[in-house]
Formats: sequence, structure tokens, C-alpha cells
Amino acid sequence: MPQLGLLHWRAWTVLLGQLRRPPGAVCIRAVRSHSQVAEALFASQLKPYQEKSNFIIKTPKGTRDLSPQQMVVREKILDVVVSCFKRHGAKGLDTPAFELKEVLTEKYGEDCGLIYDLQDQGGELLSLRYDLTVPFARYLAMNKVKKMKRYHVGKVWRRESPTIAQGRYREFYQCDFDIAGQFDPMIPDAECLKIMCEILSGLQLGDFLIKVNDRRILDGIFTVCGVPESKFHAICSSVDKLDKMSWKDVRHEMVVKKGLAPEVTDRIGDYVQCHGGISLVEQMFQDPILSQNKQALEGLGDLKLLFEYLTLFGVAEKVSFDLSLARGLDYYTGVIYEAVLLQTPVHAEEEPLNVGSVAAGGRYDGLVGMFDPRGHKVPCVGLSIGVERIFSIVEQRMKIFGEKIRTTETQVFVATPQKNFLQERLKLIAELWDAGIKAELMYKNNPKLLPQLHYCENMGIPLVVIIGEQELKEGVIKLRSVASREEVAIKRENLVAEIQKRLS
Amino acid sequence: MPQLGLLHWRAWTVLLGQLRRPPGAVCIRAVRSHSQVAEALFASQLKPYQEKSNFIIKTPKGTRDLSPQQMVVREKILDVVVSCFKRHGAKGLDTPAFELKEVLTEKYGEDCGLIYDLQDQGGELLSLRYDLTVPFARYLAMNKVKKMKRYHVGKVWRRESPTIAQGRYREFYQCDFDIAGQFDPMIPDAECLKIMCEILSGLQLGDFLIKVNDRRILDGIFTVCGVPESKFHAICSSVDKLDKMSWKDVRHEMVVKKGLAPEVTDRIGDYVQCHGGISLVEQMFQDPILSQNKQALEGLGDLKLLFEYLTLFGVAEKVSFDLSLARGLDYYTGVIYEAVLLQTPVHAEEEPLNVGSVAAGGRYDGLVGMFDPRGHKVPCVGLSIGVERIFSIVEQRMKIFGEKIRTTETQVFVATPQKNFLQERLKLIAELWDAGIKAELMYKNNPKLLPQLHYCENMGIPLVVIIGEQELKEGVIKLRSVASREEVAIKRENLVAEIQKRLS
Repeated sequence: MPQLGLLHWRAWTVLLGQLRRPPGAVCIRAVRSHSQVAEALFASQLKPYQEKSNFIIKTPKGTRDLSPQQMVVREKILDVVVSCFKRHGAKGLDTPAFELKEVLTEKYGEDCGLIYDLQDQGGELLSLRYDLTVPFARYLAMNKVKKMKRYHVGKVWRRESPTIAQGRYREFYQCDFDIAGQFDPMIPDAECLKIMCEILSGLQLGDFLIKVNDRRILDGIFTVCGVPESKFHAICSSVDKLDKMSWKDVRHEMVVKKGLAPEVTDRIGDYVQCHGGISLVEQMFQDPILSQNKQALEGLGDLKLLFEYLTLFGVAEKVSFDLSLARGLDYYTGVIYEAVLLQTPVHAEEEPLNVGSVAAGGRYDGLVGMFDPRGHKVPCVGLSIGVERIFSIVEQRMKIFGEKIRTTETQVFVATPQKNFLQERLKLIAELWDAGIKAELMYKNNPKLLPQLHYCENMGIPLVVIIGEQELKEGVIKLRSVASREEVAIKRENLVAEIQKRLS
Repeated sequence: MPQLGLLHWRAWTVLLGQLRRPPGAVCIRAVRSHSQVAEALFASQLKPYQEKSNFIIKTPKGTRDLSPQQMVVREKILDVVVSCFKRHGAKGLDTPAFELKEVLTEKYGEDCGLIYDLQDQGGELLSLRYDLTVPFARYLAMNKVKKMKRYHVGKVWRRESPTIAQGRYREFYQCDFDIAGQFDPMIPDAECLKIMCEILSGLQLGDFLIKVNDRRILDGIFTVCGVPESKFHAICSSVDKLDKMSWKDVRHEMVVKKGLAPEVTDRIGDYVQCHGGISLVEQMFQDPILSQNKQALEGLGDLKLLFEYLTLFGVAEKVSFDLSLARGLDYYTGVIYEAVLLQTPVHAEEEPLNVGSVAAGGRYDGLVGMFDPRGHKVPCVGLSIGVERIFSIVEQRMKIFGEKIRTTETQVFVATPQKNFLQERLKLIAELWDAGIKAELMYKNNPKLLPQLHYCENMGIPLVVIIGEQELKEGVIKLRSVASREEVAIKRENLVAEIQKRLS
């Protein structure tokens, strides 16, 4: 799709970049009250639903329509994301919205209950895709592709309890970038983290931090601490809660709910509460107990290399080695990462919005092999941008600032001050369209001039072409600038050229 | 999403515009054999599927993956379509992939059996959307929107028997443009037909024709010919087959299968075999029997006005009044239309591809009212572009011409001729990325120079930045043009500026 409304990109960057806006700078156009904008933005969620024969008109639970205003914002976000993916040489790929049910089976661990199944209407058993990673792995295996750098932007569906305030929906977009293939260690992994930094910086969402860990280090910790292998999964999911719960509560869950010995739990606690930079990697290398574990050593070695590359990329200070990061999905095998926004109160009026992670990913070297009859592996590493959550943040800021966004790109409006000029208007506008000029007119036989001009002002259309009796007689057209209200007469045959000159 | 690979747009227009290509003009780059390209393009359909524990890896019946080559072509098609919609002042809108089952009920007539239902997993009963029109009407009613010009590009799903050779799939994109609101007659309708012409011309698919008719004229014909009202639907669907079957066969179906009296059938035959331009509208006005019918007269009056506006838009000669056009969907209430490609044998090698209609639409004044508790109507008219079928045609032409399309937009490759230069390459490429330059490197510690240069040639990357021992010592970088193989040394600090200069 082509670029959207460049004219008003600035309006949005002002919003996004409010922290960086010089004091005293004003919004470009703040024409509506906050409540009006909020109403427009959240129309699909807040409007009362009508009843008709016991049937309530609504969108399905956890889903929403995107209004034109929301579409403009979303396309801007996707534009930043996709531009970055392309800057890193990724190719596009699309897969169907649903997969054979078996393709999704045993890929998501505890989350598998959240998959939407299609009804058996005679034929194959199908499920809506849960992410874009498993379909990508299926594509690679099916087509025996051994090497590929691809991006994919598409909707995925999860039957979660929607918490719309946090920007969590049952239908949402994912924007994925993945590198498949056997390469020298940590170069693609470092590029993934660099991409996350570029996108999060580009979106101007405020400060952020990327937590990294490695599945092998976690497994190593569990082993050396004495966790029985059967409990790895359960303990891992407890550890993952450390970003929302205190160690005391997590410890309680491990001991009471998961039946882990207190002394084992405490040993784990000593590790998973650590986070820091490259020096923590070094420290863990020196750890007399952990360094006995081969898996952990491999993970630490890779992280050391990763930090070295991140330093060369100039993003090491954005990345923190966080031993509590576990990530839910089953398919990760090595380095894992998750980006969180640092909750600086951006604006006094802004309510704190807990959006959770806004980007995440990791290495999954075994997933493609699960689809290959001989188990041939294709190592992969990738990332996913949580655009829906990012979108919630941007929406919230827009609510506060009451910014008006152009939802069309119309450049010229064809108007008349007199009756019986529909034919002339239709001939004129067809000429403009055929010349590639974005143009509109009123769908009325005899519109009054004032409503036509008001429409242009409301919609932000910069130019008006006016044709009436006198113009027709003189073979001219009046060209009016909406902003300055200046009008000039232009020879009919020069009109297109003049408009193109003014628009360029 | 941003614009895609402008560099190679020309390669595709050469393909699309083969009829207009001057004799002797050559393809820009035809580096692969036909079969190789075909293989690449149809990889997802033709590759043998592997078996693993009785499980065949495939995409669901009637669906497909889109490879990077296909994605580039599709995005180009969508770009033409969406640009046109925006040229006509449309706003974007998005709706969920699924709707409450009840939203889709009783909207599609005989086709309702083709709707995909989701499994009842506890909660609402849901169905995948069948088109973008019903969700649009639901949106208007739900939000009490009385006036809107919107476009929507999105996937829809239909459980049809897939005939992939005709470009028919169970999952496919629709590109819809609709105008909702009470306006003076036929102005928005004429704009819809103008848009169809602009898009089909813009896509350079060869000559096309748009058939128009009006539901009220059809109903009038059935009434004056003596069809019992209970048989309107059945007879309408027989009439609709006249584009694929002879009148003799359709007549047989009406009389034998649908039990219509032969003399009634013959009266219908006299009408529905007519097609022509505005003069046929005039002729029907004079028809002593049909002109007795109020509904038919209304329809004819509107068509007369429509042709007048189409003449002003300069597209009347592309439009044919075709009394056999009926359109399957239940919700149409007035003018209906359908665009077909005229099957000129474009190329000797090209097999005739029956793609059916490539765009269609009509007026549906009652649909929004079906969702409103008080039945408040919002008149609508719109069109849908059958991008999937258009895509099939383009794909087939590409197969024949064996064109290579760039699937990435990479501008610069960072290479080295020596060992131990990974660190320098990483530092360099980060600089390029941070300057917004699209850049790649090999994920190897010590790659050989030749494979690096070959990669650039294969992928169409125009520039190579080379860093080695000597360059490092002298504080320079070698910049190589892949096409000319010329190399120049550039001061390290001027590199980004020099690259940007060359790329602009």
C-alpha cells in the first residue's frame, strides 16, 4: 500500500514526540474537545448497541473495528515497522489465516487452549493462526527452504480474556521479522535486537529496555539448583512472573503450589533476581556452581558474544541481561528477549498505562524440524513487534492532546456557486482524476457554495476549483487556496498543470 | 505500508503492459528459465508434501502461502487499487475477521452455506466474514453513521470448491470502495463505475467491459412476463448463468428444472438476451409492455442518468447495459455491475485463462436498515475489486516471460576481502542503518569476497561497501558499483553522504 497522508504525519509525530516538543510549541490543529476525540476514537467500543429481536449489534468479544482515524495511526505505526524490516533486507511472506489444526498442536505449551478452532463443516480440521512464527516454520519445512530473512505483518487470534485497557485483544496484528538459516553464532540474533531498538526509537514511545536471557541458562540454573526435570516447565512459568510479582510471592507459589523444596527455591532466587549488563555475564561465568553446567556455559558464551556485537551496533546500553526472563512459548531454544517501555510519566494528565512488553522474540532452532519428516533442522531467530499495544499508547496520547488527523488525502475540491453546473463539475473532476489528482465533489445537483467551502475547511482539503457561469463564458476556472482564501482565475486548459505545480 | 521496490516496478509494468510494449523491447532481466520462475511462483502449491506420522504438511484446502515474489506482485496490484480509492477521497476502515454469526445470517441468499463457522468453544457463535460489505453495513448501523466514503482491503473466506486455475480460492483478498448516504441519484453510482475503469486501465490487463443492469428492471421483466413472485429468485439465478451457458440451455433449465411455463420463458428470453449502450435504455423505455411496470421504469430512468454521467466521465464506451446480469447476492436493490476482461489472446504461448469477473458491485439501499432496530435506511453503493483473479492473470504472464522480480530493497552490501573484519563490518552497517540506508551483510565471521559480490549480483543490490586492512589503515572505504564494477575510495567520514547522493 502507498504512503498515507504525509501532510499530517507531522501532527502525529508531535503527538508521539511530545516529550521532545519544545516548550510553548502548539499542536498544529486542535479543533475538537478531548471528549469528542475520545468518542471518535473509541466509537466502536463505547457506542451503545442497539437491540433488534434479541440481537445486539456488536463486534465479537475482544475485537474491534478500526475507525478511519485509527486506521491512519495504525498505518503510520506499521510504516515505521515495515520500513525498518526492509532496511534490514527482509522479504515479504503471507500465509493463510487458518492452518491445519495439527500444525499448531504442541507448539504453544500451556497456551494451546487459547487457539480458535473452526467448526468441522466436513473436511479438514482447521484453527486460526495463533502467531506468525509457527506458520513461517511450516512454510520453510513444506518448501524445503533452508535460508530466508522474511517479515510478515498480519492478524493473529487468541481466545484470551481481553483486557482492552492494556491494549490486549483477541484479534490483533503481529509484525514479525525472522532470520532462518545456519550462520555464525549471534550475528543474526544481534541484528534482531538492533531492529527492535530502531523500531522502538523510531516510534518515539519514550525510553525502553530490552531484557535478554537464554533458555539454556535458565535450564542450567534449574539443574544446578536441584529442580527435578519434570518441574522445569512449572518453575519456569513461575519465574516468568517476576516482572509482575515480588520474589516473596513467586517463592510462595513455587514452594506451596508447585511443591518445590524451600532450599532449592532459595537457590533459584539467588540467580533469577539478578539483572545487569555484560558484567553480569562475566560474573555468571565465574559462578562456581553455574559454571559447572555445560548448557548454561553455552548460553553464557553466546550472550557474551551478543553483547559484543550489540556494543558495535551501538545499542548495548538498551539491553539488560535479566535472569528472570523466561517467555511463555515452548519453541524457544536459546537466546530470548522482550522489550518493555520504561514508565516515565509522560504527561500529567496521562493515566499510567500498563502495556506490558511491546516487542519480544528469541531463537527457536527446533521448530522447523518438527515439520520435517526426517527432522532436518533449520535454526531460526526472530522478533515480533506488539503493534496493538503500541497503538493503545499512541491512542491514549491522542485522546489527551485532542489532535485532529486527516483521514483522507483529497487535494482538490470541485465546487460551483451556481445551479445547473453538475455536468461541468463532473467533466472537470474526471480530468483531475485522470491526471492522478485526488479530488472530490458534492453528490448534489445544486449545492450551495458555502457548505462546499466549509467541507474543505473541515476536511483539510487545500485547494478548491470553482466553476460558474462567468468562468464558463471566459474559458477560465477559479482556483482557491483554502488556507489563504485567495482566488485566481486560470485558463481552463492550464488547470491541471497549475494544480500539479501547486501540489508539488 | 510504504512503497515497494520502485526500482523494479518497471519490470512488472513491462509484463503487465506486454500488449503495449513496442516491438523489439526486451525484458529488463530474464535470468531464469520459465520453469524455474514457475516453480518459484507456485512453490507452495506444487511442492510435494512430506509425510510424518500420517500428517501431511500443507496449507488448508483452497488456501496458499504467498512467496516473496508473489507478495511483490500483490502489493503492486493493491497499490494501484488503493491509490485510486484514495484519489476519490475514501477513508480507510478495518473490521474483525469474524463477526457474530447472526450478523451474516440472511444476507447472502443461496451462498450462506459457504460461510465458515468457528467452533463453539464457549461464548459467542462466530463466523468468518464472507465479504466486506456486510461488516461495513454493520459498522454504519452500530455507530449510527449516516454518510461515509470508505475503502477496505482485507481477506474474506468462502467454503467454495476452489478452482485454483481460475484464481478462485477459499481465502482471498477483497478491495472494496463504498459510498453510504442519501445523495442525488446516480452521482455516487457513476463514480463507482469510473473507479472500476480507472483501476482496470491502471492495471493494464487488456481490454475490459463493464456490464450494468438494475435489479428493478429484472424484477419488472419477471413481472410483465408473468413469472410468479415465488419463482423470482430461482429464475434470476438461471438468468445469471447466461454468461456461461447458451440461451437454449438456460431456457431448458427454466422450463424443466424450475417449472416455468414455456411461453413465459420465451418472453423472458426476448428481454434478457439484449445488451447494448444507452440506445438500448431508450429502446426499453419505448417497450410497450415493460414501460407499463413502475419498478422497471424507475430502473431505466436511473440507468439513463447513469449513462449521461458516464459520458461526462469519459467511460460510457466501456459500459454495456446487459439485461442478463443478475448478481448472486441478496442485498442488491438497484443498479448492479460486473467487469469482465475481454479475452484477446495476449500472447501465443498464453493459455486462455477464464478468470470470470474481475470487479463487481451495485446499490444496496436496504442492508444497513437490517441492522437498525427501527429499520432506518442508509442507502449505499459500492464495488469490489477481485484482486485474486487479477493476480492469477499477472502470475500467468510472469510465468511466460520468466521475469525476475526483486524481493528485497537492499541498497548497499557491506563486504570484506579479509579475515577478522566482522567487527568493522558490524560498526559500518550500523552506521548505514542509522542513516536510513537499506543494508545487508553476510552472517559469517570470515566470508570470501566472491560469494559476497555474487550475492549482490543475484539480489540486484546496486552498491557494495568494501572494508579491508588497507582501507582501515588509510581511513577510507571502497565503494563499488555492482553494475559497472567500478570502485572508488571514499573517506570513511564521507561514506554515508556519498551513498545517499548516489541513491537519490
